[in-house]
Amino acid sequence: MRLKGLGEFSLIERLTNQMRDYNDSVILGIGDDAAAFRASDGKCMLASCDMLVEGQHFRRDWITGEQLGHKALAVSLSDIAAMGGVPRYALISAGWPNDMDLDYAEGIYRGMGELAASCGVFIIGGDTVSAPQLILDVTVIGEMEGNPVTRACAVPGHVFAVTGTLGAAAAGLALLKRGDHLPGEADPEQSLSPPAKQALLRAHLLPQPRIKEAGILLQTGSPSAMIDISDGLASEIHHICKGSGVGAAVVTSMLPVDEHTQMAAQSLGQDFLEWVLYGGEDYELLVTLAEDQAFAVKGELGKLGVDFTIIGKVTDKAKGINLLREDGSVVSLRKKGYDHFKS
Amino acid sequence: MRLKGLGEFSLIERLTNQMRDYNDSVILGIGDDAAAFRASDGKCMLASCDMLVEGQHFRRDWITGEQLGHKALAVSLSDIAAMGGVPRYALISAGWPNDMDLDYAEGIYRGMGELAASCGVFIIGGDTVSAPQLILDVTVIGEMEGNPVTRACAVPGHVFAVTGTLGAAAAGLALLKRGDHLPGEADPEQSLSPPAKQALLRAHLLPQPRIKEAGILLQTGSPSAMIDISDGLASEIHHICKGSGVGAAVVTSMLPVDEHTQMAAQSLGQDFLEWVLYGGEDYELLVTLAEDQAFAVKGELGKLGVDFTIIGKVTDKAKGINLLREDGSVVSLRKKGYDHFKS
Repeated sequence: MRLKGLGEFSLIERLTNQMRDYNDSVILGIGDDAAAFRASDGKCMLASCDMLVEGQHFRRDWITGEQLGHKALAVSLSDIAAMGGVPRYALISAGWPNDMDLDYAEGIYRGMGELAASCGVFIIGGDTVSAPQLILDVTVIGEMEGNPVTRACAVPGHVFAVTGTLGAAAAGLALLKRGDHLPGEADPEQSLSPPAKQALLRAHLLPQPRIKEAGILLQTGSPSAMIDISDGLASEIHHICKGSGVGAAVVTSMLPVDEHTQMAAQSLGQDFLEWVLYGGEDYELLVTLAEDQAFAVKGELGKLGVDFTIIGKVTDKAKGINLLREDGSVVSLRKKGYDHFKS
Repeated sequence: MRLKGLGEFSLIERLTNQMRDYNDSVILGIGDDAAAFRASDGKCMLASCDMLVEGQHFRRDWITGEQLGHKALAVSLSDIAAMGGVPRYALISAGWPNDMDLDYAEGIYRGMGELAASCGVFIIGGDTVSAPQLILDVTVIGEMEGNPVTRACAVPGHVFAVTGTLGAAAAGLALLKRGDHLPGEADPEQSLSPPAKQALLRAHLLPQPRIKEAGILLQTGSPSAMIDISDGLASEIHHICKGSGVGAAVVTSMLPVDEHTQMAAQSLGQDFLEWVLYGGEDYELLVTLAEDQAFAVKGELGKLGVDFTIIGKVTDKAKGINLLREDGSVVSLRKKGYDHFKS
């Protein structure tokens, strides 16, 4: 069934009828001019939005509706996590092409609904319009005790550390670009097993926002700066350095890159370091904190099976933003990440 | 200068550098992963978003950047007003075509910034991506004392009333469709003066959210239901009737239509009642309240020079949703307003 066979209000009802199981904090959910909720007294509120546009950020033949819904919400949840906050509410603005399949649209809302439920987030409102291509803009509202962890307070002497591993999302995208959107398909060079391929595609298609991990980080340590890695590690390091007025010494050999990503780079004849530094969409957390705290955090996150890896040092601004390479050479870390207007 | 000559972050800085004059409630504005703000203790928070897509909701040759920025924010502010709330913060997601003119983009942010400042709203965050056409999605967060006025509590015996006049925005759109986007241009039939034309174009291009008026409504009376007229009066009456389980008797001759709109209908050979009922984009408030309160509200709004007009009665659901026409006949009020997927 195509969307144009449905009226706007039938479509909204159909897509959102699974999403109205709210708790008492939601005064008014989907269906009125605005949503209403009761904020916890005295807490700092957070808000962030992220827009995904078909053809720019995704292709419908590469990602299922469920995956796309998950991802559209995940990238905004990741922003709240990167401030140290707990996401609570989401609003979904959707632009739908008239000829779009209703199943795909329902898949998007199912994917969003499942991720939202698993994070304790309520989808309380949104907007529905028609558009020449699929557009999803998700606003997430969160809250936190104390003050947000910005990108502006990194301190020389602290270390840079990241959750998880880097580059897998870019490897997954490279596989999709080569035509590997069927995860079960045999690799032409036989160098990547189907499970390896699947893991890389999942990293690109189903990023996991590090909400729980951010909570543990704040309970265990006092990160001086935090940011999520959406545009590639290099870009995020530059954001922290610019925001905080500091420099950086990042050590190539310390960057956490999983085996699948390294194998994919070999198989595709690409440099995994490019993926790590400039690929983006890992949605891991990049933090600065005191080195002893980094070890404590590593211990706590390890209990969840999540890596936490020191990748370098915060330095004085005058020292610049540098990459220490395996051959012992030091080069200036280029800023260039994914830039929507220069790519 | 075209946007593609600028980097993403230079563009954001350039567009938003006028918007960072925050007060103490803003903990963190534009520039980090998420914005942070301190909600007033115990207040009910409101959130709403509205997406405008080039070619669907506007044409760049019909609307200036300033007007478009104003309108994109105004339609979301109107949603907060329609709950009885005070808008406080806005987030702007923008999708920009690469070949777009920087002046136009700056105009959009100027228009938004001016309206925001005039309403005490802070623009605290957003997202910037590239897109095949211009997309603006504005999320507004507001707050209010007490509980929001929904569309679900209209009571039989109350009256329907509207702020301002209806149909002017649709008249303005009809003029634009005819090619009248130069406000000073002489009307071919000489029946519309340039000031009349300008007023109708302004109604379409620069809608005024009824924030102050909603505040006066709540101070003076106790509206049982309230909604803003975005899709046309008929559609909004149906929303209230469906939400509240009531019927309606709307009297054609009582509908407030200004002289310019009537003249434009005559000049274009169109029926102004179609504009009023199905045209949409008036962004006036439709409320239900006790009749004596309606007179009190009319008195208070009159002091601001704003009309407030009783247009009919809330009836029992069994009586249906009816239009009482000038010839004495009663017809069922069709629901059809502007529907994005059936038009």
